[in-house]
Amino acid sequence: MEKEAKQMEREVKRYDIIIIGGGPAGISAGIYAVSRGKKVLVIEKEKIGGLIGRVSTVTHYTGIVENETGSTFAARMEKQAESAGVQVIYETVCSVSLQGNMKKVVTEKGIYEASRLILANGTTPRKLGIPGEEELSGRGVGKNAARDGKNFAGKNIYVVGGADGAVKEALYLAQFARKLTIIHFEEKLGCIPEFLKKVEAAPNIEVRTGTRLAGIYGKEQIGSLELKDEKTGEITRISDEGCGVFIYAGSVPNTEMYGELKLENGYIPVNASMETEIPGVYAAGDICAKQVRQAATAVAEGAVAGICAAK
Amino acid sequence: MEKEAKQMEREVKRYDIIIIGGGPAGISAGIYAVSRGKKVLVIEKEKIGGLIGRVSTVTHYTGIVENETGSTFAARMEKQAESAGVQVIYETVCSVSLQGNMKKVVTEKGIYEASRLILANGTTPRKLGIPGEEELSGRGVGKNAARDGKNFAGKNIYVVGGADGAVKEALYLAQFARKLTIIHFEEKLGCIPEFLKKVEAAPNIEVRTGTRLAGIYGKEQIGSLELKDEKTGEITRISDEGCGVFIYAGSVPNTEMYGELKLENGYIPVNASMETEIPGVYAAGDICAKQVRQAATAVAEGAVAGICAAK
Repeated sequence: MEKEAKQMEREVKRYDIIIIGGGPAGISAGIYAVSRGKKVLVIEKEKIGGLIGRVSTVTHYTGIVENETGSTFAARMEKQAESAGVQVIYETVCSVSLQGNMKKVVTEKGIYEASRLILANGTTPRKLGIPGEEELSGRGVGKNAARDGKNFAGKNIYVVGGADGAVKEALYLAQFARKLTIIHFEEKLGCIPEFLKKVEAAPNIEVRTGTRLAGIYGKEQIGSLELKDEKTGEITRISDEGCGVFIYAGSVPNTEMYGELKLENGYIPVNASMETEIPGVYAAGDICAKQVRQAATAVAEGAVAGICAAK
Repeated sequence: MEKEAKQMEREVKRYDIIIIGGGPAGISAGIYAVSRGKKVLVIEKEKIGGLIGRVSTVTHYTGIVENETGSTFAARMEKQAESAGVQVIYETVCSVSLQGNMKKVVTEKGIYEASRLILANGTTPRKLGIPGEEELSGRGVGKNAARDGKNFAGKNIYVVGGADGAVKEALYLAQFARKLTIIHFEEKLGCIPEFLKKVEAAPNIEVRTGTRLAGIYGKEQIGSLELKDEKTGEITRISDEGCGVFIYAGSVPNTEMYGELKLENGYIPVNASMETEIPGVYAAGDICAKQVRQAATAVAEGAVAGICAAK
């Protein structure tokens, strides 16, 4: 009761448009909405840039600078948003209320309202749910190849995953590793031919398909790994003191707060204006139900959402 | 007969994917298609960059560098395409044949075939069709503000048009002009609030709405202009020796070659994979029927078209 009363007392801050998420989609939406004369708030829980801010290399996005990394790209995004006049706050959204004319966003620090909401809070890397994955995080299990890769210079590195994101980071990490092993449960890597060619050309990359990582063991560092054969179920234990493990096992959309919306496999369906089934609520970027998830599509969807929400 | 026989003799060059147009949509499509292991040809009639390559300032596109101009953006695009391995030829397409499994593209120099075609040849600035518009081109009537603006330092400059593209160039040209006049036939400028504010704040910009440019007169340079009042039809003649005129009167889609496709107001309808009604024929960028025409949307559409065409 007391807590509730306290919450009631908190001042509600009003904007024209609130954007949840400061990745490429959210920042693009913010830049366009501000240019349309709107008072815009971006709520980001961690850092401008989203998932792409943490990749080792930004590839294929038209206009990137040479040797673009996730962190140089994110830094430019942040500066651009700032000079455009996009207000960014760093808070975690606890709940939203999407129906009605005024949409409400509650964070751990404040209450915000706007008649237009853009949901651009993307996806979160999926966990394998195996022993050691959490416990050895930061002590062998790396989350950010660009930042942590060099800690494993001269050691063996294992990358779990066979899609573009996994193989791209494997190619980056191979420069540090004595030997780099890609562990993928399917029969073939599922990445684009460009990356596949580079894997084949790399002298120190081994690909183990039909295999899952089943456990990571150690104390201050990783001591051994368990691999499971996808067909036979046979478990092999590998001793590899001080090795690194990077897991890229896909991602899950951050839509658990959006119970008011009908979802498609967890993703948000939108129309050509990037509007959801609830009027005034838009979505953009990886969180949307769509075919192609790239920085380029996120940026364009943000642009469309920002422009349409500002109308 | 002889000419035909000669044409028959010409070797037909085959690619997996042919892209017509080297603007943001075409280049993005090329980069993605090559990364998918395809043999890709971009046919560009003039210069990599498309219309955005000629703007004075690139605004709002996520990831641009500071003080980005059309020409710096286009230069980076060109380099990126080259290092990705996208083959670009500089030829003008004379005709295309879209039906069937192999699509054919005929230029003034060669014949090219591919099972997938991406139409990304955008739009062309619309002409006013008034006296002097052609005759005084390059002698007062400028086509490229970024390149030609400084030639009118200390002179008066007139910009025709009230949409974003026109007003953005007016803001750029105002730095050179003694006085800059925006001539627009509607009652109000149709640009975004960001640009409107800047126009209002500029000390040397005058806006003449409800007015059309009716004629441009002079010999070696412009001597006078005729303005027509949109309501009364009254013509006013202004003497302004050596002034500059820049015309941004919208644009028309370059679809005259695509008689095989059903168009929407001259633009090409596509589905979510950016495929047209003819299987294997895709379109991307400003040439598509759509809501938002921005570099960001062109790049994303190119990405989707490139990825889907490569499947």
